[in-house]
Amino acid sequence: MQKVYLVGAGPGDKELITVKGLKLLKECDVVIYDRLASFELLEEVRADCIKVCVGKEPGRHSMSQEEINGLLVEYGQKYDKVVRLKGGDSFVFGRGGEEAEALQKAGLSFELVPGVTSAVAVPECAGIPVTHRGMSQSFHVITGHTKDGEHALTEDYHILAGLDGTLVFLMGLGNLKEITERLMAHGKDKTTPAAVIEKGTTSEERMVRGTLENIYGKVSRAGLSSPVVILIGKTAALSYGKYKKCQKKTIGITATTGTADKLRSALEREGFHVVETCKMEVEEIREAG
Amino acid sequence: MQKVYLVGAGPGDKELITVKGLKLLKECDVVIYDRLASFELLEEVRADCIKVCVGKEPGRHSMSQEEINGLLVEYGQKYDKVVRLKGGDSFVFGRGGEEAEALQKAGLSFELVPGVTSAVAVPECAGIPVTHRGMSQSFHVITGHTKDGEHALTEDYHILAGLDGTLVFLMGLGNLKEITERLMAHGKDKTTPAAVIEKGTTSEERMVRGTLENIYGKVSRAGLSSPVVILIGKTAALSYGKYKKCQKKTIGITATTGTADKLRSALEREGFHVVETCKMEVEEIREAG
Repeated sequence: MQKVYLVGAGPGDKELITVKGLKLLKECDVVIYDRLASFELLEEVRADCIKVCVGKEPGRHSMSQEEINGLLVEYGQKYDKVVRLKGGDSFVFGRGGEEAEALQKAGLSFELVPGVTSAVAVPECAGIPVTHRGMSQSFHVITGHTKDGEHALTEDYHILAGLDGTLVFLMGLGNLKEITERLMAHGKDKTTPAAVIEKGTTSEERMVRGTLENIYGKVSRAGLSSPVVILIGKTAALSYGKYKKCQKKTIGITATTGTADKLRSALEREGFHVVETCKMEVEEIREAG
Repeated sequence: MQKVYLVGAGPGDKELITVKGLKLLKECDVVIYDRLASFELLEEVRADCIKVCVGKEPGRHSMSQEEINGLLVEYGQKYDKVVRLKGGDSFVFGRGGEEAEALQKAGLSFELVPGVTSAVAVPECAGIPVTHRGMSQSFHVITGHTKDGEHALTEDYHILAGLDGTLVFLMGLGNLKEITERLMAHGKDKTTPAAVIEKGTTSEERMVRGTLENIYGKVSRAGLSSPVVILIGKTAALSYGKYKKCQKKTIGITATTGTADKLRSALEREGFHVVETCKMEVEEIREAG
């Protein structure tokens, strides 16, 4: 039977696609994909599978959503098994609803295959739980940018600032300054822990931690690039798993101010928590001997 | 190397576990599991794998979290590969943070393997997107009950009522009346669409739709039981996918009042939207001939 499958690819690590998603990917006649955290997944398709890239990137849309919908319908009418593959989950800011609507209007049979959402999995793999007993009884997933070309933040930041659970912003790097400033302007404590994770769950993952007040500066200095997941809330200070392994070690380092600053930001970029930097100005360093 | 894996099993359908999760399940020496949407996953383990049920059910905790943590450490010290398997994702009200903390304190190596969360996947497979362009730019995942034995709702309902995105309550069936009443008391429009999905993504899935005002009554009459996902917000009225297939069909039915009511609630229980019921009292029905 002819069918189009809207498949969530998961957050980046290719093994975090679902069993069902991978099975469909291996069998399909056509795969229509956009910016994925993991291109490795495309290696799983049949040799004669038609691969169609619709190259959606934030701020640079090589193809409009309407064109993508049109393509889905076109391939859906011609081929038996079409997979529409997208990062994370199709219904978490993936515009899966619009694609489903287009398929429905065209009278095509389709199925939604959920994926692991980056909103939960990226912090999780970096050691941060979005919920934690006695600390966060809810989490809130918010888009950091809005419709095509529009970058105004439409959410009511007065309400968001009042939430006690973990705030998770997706696609928000370009608006990080405004997001943090608005939350503070509406009364969110500036010392609230914050973390930004770049390319989460992949080998290129990087994390910067800080507070609502200083996270923007830290992220800018570290030069993080999209995609990132932004976390704001008490749990953003936690770390279970890989980043925790060095937590109890104290490493003393002596260096000149410039080097110490570089080292500090390098460590912070890697997710370490630097407790103290004692600065001591040195006029000159003479080589021994 | 000895390691404990905290693996999310996904929302119910056994094919919605991740590729990595299934691989670990097939290889592990011990699996420690609780109430899962899909027991079928346990058939995937090795014949000599030790299966330990810690039987957590809402309102009936056969084993305390502390005891579970202790078991994890005990098996983690004895065996090479231990999988802690739980429904959905470990960090979405799964108390994965507490288990990770216990393993960390015991000096054991562990890894978090995210799962597809029911909060997104259950509505998705029932045709409801948690985000939708121009309709919902955020979603909010809230626990419908709190710590062991406590059923007080700790969230600030004044804030929750002001959110424009989709509200998703997990484990909230026992508090559905209070949740809806509190939201209305804090100004949430009583005509806001609502949906409750029981045993989502499984063959036993049932859905009841309504509004913030009438969903509790409808769910009670339908007799839904846990686990359910509760959705409140504009997108709860949408339906892409399986439930949509009958949307454009009009079916005229003539029946006595009692039968019509039964039919109506049966249809609603199955997720159909009944547009109109014309009632006509009939004194008696005489058999033809």
